[in-house]
Amino acid sequence: MTDIIYIQPLTAASFAPFGDVIEASGHPDRMINAGMCRRFDDCAQLSFADGRAGISVFDAKVRKLPMTLDLMERHPDGSQAFLPMTQNPFLVVVAPDEDGIPGRPVAFETQPGQGVNYHRNVWHGVLAPLYEPGLFAVVDRVGAGANLEEHRFAHDITIMK
Amino acid sequence: MTDIIYIQPLTAASFAPFGDVIEASGHPDRMINAGMCRRFDDCAQLSFADGRAGISVFDAKVRKLPMTLDLMERHPDGSQAFLPMTQNPFLVVVAPDEDGIPGRPVAFETQPGQGVNYHRNVWHGVLAPLYEPGLFAVVDRVGAGANLEEHRFAHDITIMK
Repeated sequence: MTDIIYIQPLTAASFAPFGDVIEASGHPDRMINAGMCRRFDDCAQLSFADGRAGISVFDAKVRKLPMTLDLMERHPDGSQAFLPMTQNPFLVVVAPDEDGIPGRPVAFETQPGQGVNYHRNVWHGVLAPLYEPGLFAVVDRVGAGANLEEHRFAHDITIMK
Repeated sequence: MTDIIYIQPLTAASFAPFGDVIEASGHPDRMINAGMCRRFDDCAQLSFADGRAGISVFDAKVRKLPMTLDLMERHPDGSQAFLPMTQNPFLVVVAPDEDGIPGRPVAFETQPGQGVNYHRNVWHGVLAPLYEPGLFAVVDRVGAGANLEEHRFAHDITIMK
């Protein structure tokens, strides 16, 4: 049996159960720099069990659609934000937790100018840029321990448009 | 008298007195996602006197060159990282502190894939994208208080290539 998941556009409302969409949307919280800059404040719920926040850079190979989803992961000790350093859309796959394993995945494609923050311990697919270069700044926990749980699916799941 | 500052390319070495260049440079610290992703760990010295790290979004108007630098600012209570959500180069102006005011400014232009982190209390110019859209994710301190010191120059400073 192949399970097919269709990709939907990413919106803050549809992504809310899993995390935050980081984008310049709606009214800015403040105008700064003498009116030259719109500031949207504090767009992501950062949460770290211990350790501290750090900024890393991920350079990931592009994924082709349709894509087989064989693995999901989660980070029990911290949230993880992916901030694209390009205007390229990328694929965001998340799932609700069902008794310690991922339930049915949900797939989103970002628009230019959108980043995401996975809330702590939310199941998600690995970083999946759809276009070169797959370059991201990542804000996540820096600290001791693996902070990683993985789940391999027993059946094939296909992600497509 | 007009003082002219010429723009130089941004490198980690030349920027080191002021902060960190956030980029996928050199050997990755780790390969993750079954070899599909290069991870460059913990690229920025985040430092907050109090409060906590947050992710905000800045959408700034483009600056034209040559640019007059009339104002610099610094944040006594925290570092501030600018992560471009585009591949557009932007202008980075910093200055050493000299008895509580900015010394002679230094100007850099980023390359695609480069972000910067201003160390805590380092004098810098306001966000100056050179191309539309001027969209950045910003990792800085979220907390009480102004956390802002400004300095207006008594003479004109021109930034140019």
